[in-house]
Amino acid sequence: MRGTVLYAPGDVRVEDRPDPTIEQPTDAVIRLAATCVCGSDLWPYRGIEAIDGPSPMGHEYVGVVEDVGSEVRNVQPGQFVVGSFFASDNTCEICRAGYQTHCVNRQPGAATGGQAERLRVPLADGTLVPTPGMPDADLVPSLLAASDVLGTGWFAAVAAEAGPGRTVAVVGDGAVGLLGVLAAKQLGAERIVIFSRHESRQKLALEFGATDVVVERGDEGVARIKDLTGGLGAHSVIEAVGTQESMMQAIRATRAGGHVGYVGVSHDVALPGEELFFSGVHLHGGPAPVRRFLPELIDLICSRRIDPGKVFDLTLPLEQAAEGYRAMDERRAIKTLLTV
Amino acid sequence: MRGTVLYAPGDVRVEDRPDPTIEQPTDAVIRLAATCVCGSDLWPYRGIEAIDGPSPMGHEYVGVVEDVGSEVRNVQPGQFVVGSFFASDNTCEICRAGYQTHCVNRQPGAATGGQAERLRVPLADGTLVPTPGMPDADLVPSLLAASDVLGTGWFAAVAAEAGPGRTVAVVGDGAVGLLGVLAAKQLGAERIVIFSRHESRQKLALEFGATDVVVERGDEGVARIKDLTGGLGAHSVIEAVGTQESMMQAIRATRAGGHVGYVGVSHDVALPGEELFFSGVHLHGGPAPVRRFLPELIDLICSRRIDPGKVFDLTLPLEQAAEGYRAMDERRAIKTLLTV
Repeated sequence: MRGTVLYAPGDVRVEDRPDPTIEQPTDAVIRLAATCVCGSDLWPYRGIEAIDGPSPMGHEYVGVVEDVGSEVRNVQPGQFVVGSFFASDNTCEICRAGYQTHCVNRQPGAATGGQAERLRVPLADGTLVPTPGMPDADLVPSLLAASDVLGTGWFAAVAAEAGPGRTVAVVGDGAVGLLGVLAAKQLGAERIVIFSRHESRQKLALEFGATDVVVERGDEGVARIKDLTGGLGAHSVIEAVGTQESMMQAIRATRAGGHVGYVGVSHDVALPGEELFFSGVHLHGGPAPVRRFLPELIDLICSRRIDPGKVFDLTLPLEQAAEGYRAMDERRAIKTLLTV
Repeated sequence: MRGTVLYAPGDVRVEDRPDPTIEQPTDAVIRLAATCVCGSDLWPYRGIEAIDGPSPMGHEYVGVVEDVGSEVRNVQPGQFVVGSFFASDNTCEICRAGYQTHCVNRQPGAATGGQAERLRVPLADGTLVPTPGMPDADLVPSLLAASDVLGTGWFAAVAAEAGPGRTVAVVGDGAVGLLGVLAAKQLGAERIVIFSRHESRQKLALEFGATDVVVERGDEGVARIKDLTGGLGAHSVIEAVGTQESMMQAIRATRAGGHVGYVGVSHDVALPGEELFFSGVHLHGGPAPVRRFLPELIDLICSRRIDPGKVFDLTLPLEQAAEGYRAMDERRAIKTLLTV
């Protein structure tokens, strides 16, 4: 089959790779309906995260089950399924508490090599969620978004305790931040402020439910949030970048007793203890337990109440994955969908 | 009147200071029934926190109202009251959300000079809570504990979401940590583990409801908590020290999705973003909004359901405050009560 491999920073290739097969009795193999490039794929693509030799890329996937191992009970060949980027058993104590990314049996298998025609998914019973019947083709991008960026933005909004009566600020106008806006809106937030200086992203944020756009960043951005909230700061702040500046902007934009939900993968971040202590905020985040939210998100998508697939503003065939990476790296695209 | 003043590290004196008077129409002046030395007083006493000239000390207080300003409505002369270390109006949006230490009108007035015979308390209506009638003398130590260390330990337990079915670990065996144990017990925690290597503190922790004692610290202490929790870590961890080591011990002892409630005042702490991100814990803390809990704590004390005053294992007259500091600094005493 064909699949993407990153050889070095900036050097991503589509090449022949071995077809995946059932290796464990709990595995499934799926034929992908579509896949995509994640903002987190840009870290190694940009050389900020080291890679250890040629690396198959991609961890967002939807598609049709082709084969299952002998112990798989909950999914069967022919079903359309959505998975998340960590394989989890969904039965351990940690999974039952809603933290499937920290499953005691978690496996990164489902988190590598998803930009391809087929994918082996470990712990299929716990990891995959079937859709109600075969979805219409126009729903595929939204279901693909659910497998990572929507689930991650949703987790961030939940971690930030977005809800009725709340003012929510969103740091980061990539796909996750934009879908954090959508999640906050669905969760009933009263006011949603997006930090963004890119017109196309501002526009999508407003479509998703943002009420205000702030173009300032850092301490100036914080000052604008204070202006908008009677000097107090937002109740809820979603952090979807992962840098020192974005984390401090998120913490400082939050009122005492408010909540920061952070999902940008931390890179060279050190939080100053004294400032955090006296801020009085709640901090929660990390790799999103997307699996927790999948049933609800699939329902919202299949009943056409949300349309998160709008974050894909570039669609290319898998063979042109390299251009998909470039477009995102240069911020010409928010997110690239790859057809297979 | 007589009161303590810190002149330099290790140099605390009791001397004549001007009697406090009503300065604002919202002030009250109280005659203290007892006061005490706080663990946080030891930071400047040890020279770890700089002082800017001679500093009146003390911020924990209970006593009888002597005088009130013209706008005070909720307390009156003759009432016995408990206050907390930040004066707060208890009516602003932040106070109503339960974060009185971040009140938009907060004043540090109530946080300085409490080791004395009298104290001026700003924003008396918001800050002071009267007891039901004049308490028996033997309840005074417990009511004094409520004004800071109990309220702080209680906040830590609430921030850590201690409750039924939860395993709670407590980092720090000072008065706040020990009262965190008491709070976790009252909140219904199933298992309470205290990190302590001091026999007298272990004993008090067990009296307050601890079920397990762990003498190891740092990564070894974390390993012991994992052993006790099927490898997962505690649901809830109370951090009551404020150092880099204690914060990391608390974070690492907590399971993914669990809660760290941290109340040790941070000193030279920098939290590594990547480790925090992948830990998946909730982090909340800061200066405790003791005022939020005072009505409930006063009720528990006056109905003799809890006896937090047991943390005072040394009682001295105010004139011997210097010895009270020394005993705590040398860990000969958990906490010193000063009679006035």
